Amino acid sequence: MASLSTQNYKGARDFYPEDMRLQRHIFDTWALIAQRYGYEEYDGPILEFTDLYRAKTGQEIVEEQTYSFKDRGGRDVTIRPEITPTLARMVAARSQELATPIRWYSTPNLWRYERPQSGRLREHWQFNVDILGVEDISAELEVITLLHDLMHEFGADDDMFQIRLNSRELMSYIFGEYLSMGVDVSHRLTKLLDRKGKMSDEAFINQADAILGDKLNTFLDLIRTTKLRDLPNDLLESEPAQDLARLGKLLTARDINNIRFDLTIQRGFDYYTGIVFEVFDTNPDNSRSIAGGGRYDDLMSIFKAPRIPAVGFGMGDVIMADFLKVHNLEPKLTSSTKVVVISLDSDQIEAADELATKLRQSGINTATDLTDKKVGNKVKAADKKAIAYVIVVGDKEAISKDYALKHLASGDEERGDIDFIIEKLS
Amino acid sequence: MASLSTQNYKGARDFYPEDMRLQRHIFDTWALIAQRYGYEEYDGPILEFTDLYRAKTGQEIVEEQTYSFKDRGGRDVTIRPEITPTLARMVAARSQELATPIRWYSTPNLWRYERPQSGRLREHWQFNVDILGVEDISAELEVITLLHDLMHEFGADDDMFQIRLNSRELMSYIFGEYLSMGVDVSHRLTKLLDRKGKMSDEAFINQADAILGDKLNTFLDLIRTTKLRDLPNDLLESEPAQDLARLGKLLTARDINNIRFDLTIQRGFDYYTGIVFEVFDTNPDNSRSIAGGGRYDDLMSIFKAPRIPAVGFGMGDVIMADFLKVHNLEPKLTSSTKVVVISLDSDQIEAADELATKLRQSGINTATDLTDKKVGNKVKAADKKAIAYVIVVGDKEAISKDYALKHLASGDEERGDIDFIIEKLS
Repeated sequence: MASLSTQNYKGARDFYPEDMRLQRHIFDTWALIAQRYGYEEYDGPILEFTDLYRAKTGQEIVEEQTYSFKDRGGRDVTIRPEITPTLARMVAARSQELATPIRWYSTPNLWRYERPQSGRLREHWQFNVDILGVEDISAELEVITLLHDLMHEFGADDDMFQIRLNSRELMSYIFGEYLSMGVDVSHRLTKLLDRKGKMSDEAFINQADAILGDKLNTFLDLIRTTKLRDLPNDLLESEPAQDLARLGKLLTARDINNIRFDLTIQRGFDYYTGIVFEVFDTNPDNSRSIAGGGRYDDLMSIFKAPRIPAVGFGMGDVIMADFLKVHNLEPKLTSSTKVVVISLDSDQIEAADELATKLRQSGINTATDLTDKKVGNKVKAADKKAIAYVIVVGDKEAISKDYALKHLASGDEERGDIDFIIEKLS
Repeated sequence: MASLSTQNYKGARDFYPEDMRLQRHIFDTWALIAQRYGYEEYDGPILEFTDLYRAKTGQEIVEEQTYSFKDRGGRDVTIRPEITPTLARMVAARSQELATPIRWYSTPNLWRYERPQSGRLREHWQFNVDILGVEDISAELEVITLLHDLMHEFGADDDMFQIRLNSRELMSYIFGEYLSMGVDVSHRLTKLLDRKGKMSDEAFINQADAILGDKLNTFLDLIRTTKLRDLPNDLLESEPAQDLARLGKLLTARDINNIRFDLTIQRGFDYYTGIVFEVFDTNPDNSRSIAGGGRYDDLMSIFKAPRIPAVGFGMGDVIMADFLKVHNLEPKLTSSTKVVVISLDSDQIEAADELATKLRQSGINTATDLTDKKVGNKVKAADKKAIAYVIVVGDKEAISKDYALKHLASGDEERGDIDFIIEKLS
């Protein structure tokens, strides 16, 4: 048989224990803050019928970026590129029973066939937070507050990130009432704005020019506006702009000041209907979108289920890990294993094993190294695995039951009986 | 647009918050015990190159039961049906750097295209525990002890489950030396034994007869043996039987007595090389295999990497949930949300919101219900979500800052200021 490559699928990741520690740190922080705000965990299958995404996920994603195939029974299935359609399906299936407000979070693994690049792989784990059943902007207020708290829980200060706000309704108003454009033209502009970050300014202006003609400059002035109050008065007085203004005021009242108005924020998915928002890293080396979301009040309609207003956002693990790295916020993570009990040679295997069993019975995460390697190599192996402590059991310890607990980082050693060891490690 | 179905993909599961609670209980118990024994978490991609499974996973699985397809670049990929090949790939890729003994665990989502049936769906989450780098049976001893501890952590007594032991080497010895059969015939018998549980006794005997002819009765006597010492002497003295005997003795010394010798235990995968084991539910209503594993010392060879001896096992969430149900071991699980702060009417939204914010700042998982539903319905909604406590904020509370904390299960109410509430809920 030919030899297999140890290479994994391009754009996917192997998580060795040291990678998994950081991953768990991110997952745990997500769960901590979601639960703090009363959100409960849910999940759905990684495989869904392809039709679920044809409705509202967006044409480009479904036709070019999904992992879609026929199962062995000829059904069209897709590895989920996002979880919101699954959430909507699950809520629609029980819309009569579920008590609103529904607050759910999840951390699904999502896949998209794209060219892998820094901060964007073919798969990622994405934290999703959604509140359903709330019509007014208290929903947006809550999830943006949660998001802000989450960034702080990760150790970020307000100057490390910025929350940018826009409104799909305001965009419709601008395109329809203010610039008097048809639905088709509006749709093309929305898609263009959504791709703006991925193209040069020149290319963007050229394409906008082709769509807008003599309205180009009015449009460019609008999208350069960074403060809502700088909008022309007739726009500022529109209902969607007033909603944004009220939300901004409520956020400021909660001491959330790193917010900005930005008409270029679109969010790719077709299902958004109201306020949309995105969090950006302010570091110029990583000036990317860390999280984003918005209001989608009509998604239940694809299932002909009763309308349920909804607001949610997503945040990926790859981009979050980059953010932590760029801002020096990666915590020092050690192994979940607290101590390794090492036998000096084969005579002490039983004594070492007995000690390990007792430590485990006291709730201490304990590994053993009973191999015939040299004791120095066993200690090195423990250190390499980021395990904090070792205990070497030699003839003396096997008889006296008096052990030396060695802290590997400092080299400090303390001696005592099993009760002392348990107390130290608990 | 036609309306979409809310039905999920057949054989896959939606986890609503109440389902997720049980799922988390299972996941957390797995992680607790794995970590207790010094195992560290790892993970790999859910999508792997199909070739990875062609080597050793077993023909039936790869040709009939995988979710395999070509990606948009024409690569043959498969949604993982098991994680051991991924583990082997990851270890082989770093075989020079990783310090043995390697103790890793993971909880991957696995997929197989099979007819969904009770206890067996098309996807499940499978706890995997593997120790690599240990040649002797101390590895088997450790993982079986861990498995036994795990069952007890789930609340099981020894009479609820049984650990059955066999050895691939012993089978080879029986087929080759004892019954003087060729490799091909041995292989067919191994596969037949592996399917034994899925066919009638009559069908099994007929098929065994077709393979074995006049050796049928000798064979049937052997596989009915439940105690190693009841084997014919020349078999009992073979090295693989002696290994099993020693393992049995060591397990008994650790007070693990619910073990049995069983020559029909095969484990489906082609890569096992030594002792194999399986845990069975002793309840006649659920007499299925809950977990299984064994020694696979040669799996690195598919990557032409240096040989690393290995022992591991897997345990699925579907079968574990069934086990907990059948034996009444499902714990009473409440929401991760501790309390819901309810506004009596729209005048108290701000006061309720302020209280919720303060509770969250004290680390208490707090939801709000600020909708205009009737207060009775809000309380019912909290109860339905298995949230333990509610606080209703009316005009009186908004002014006095004296709150009534109501425990929904008992109906008990206690009054106090915010410090009292925080103390009660912490």
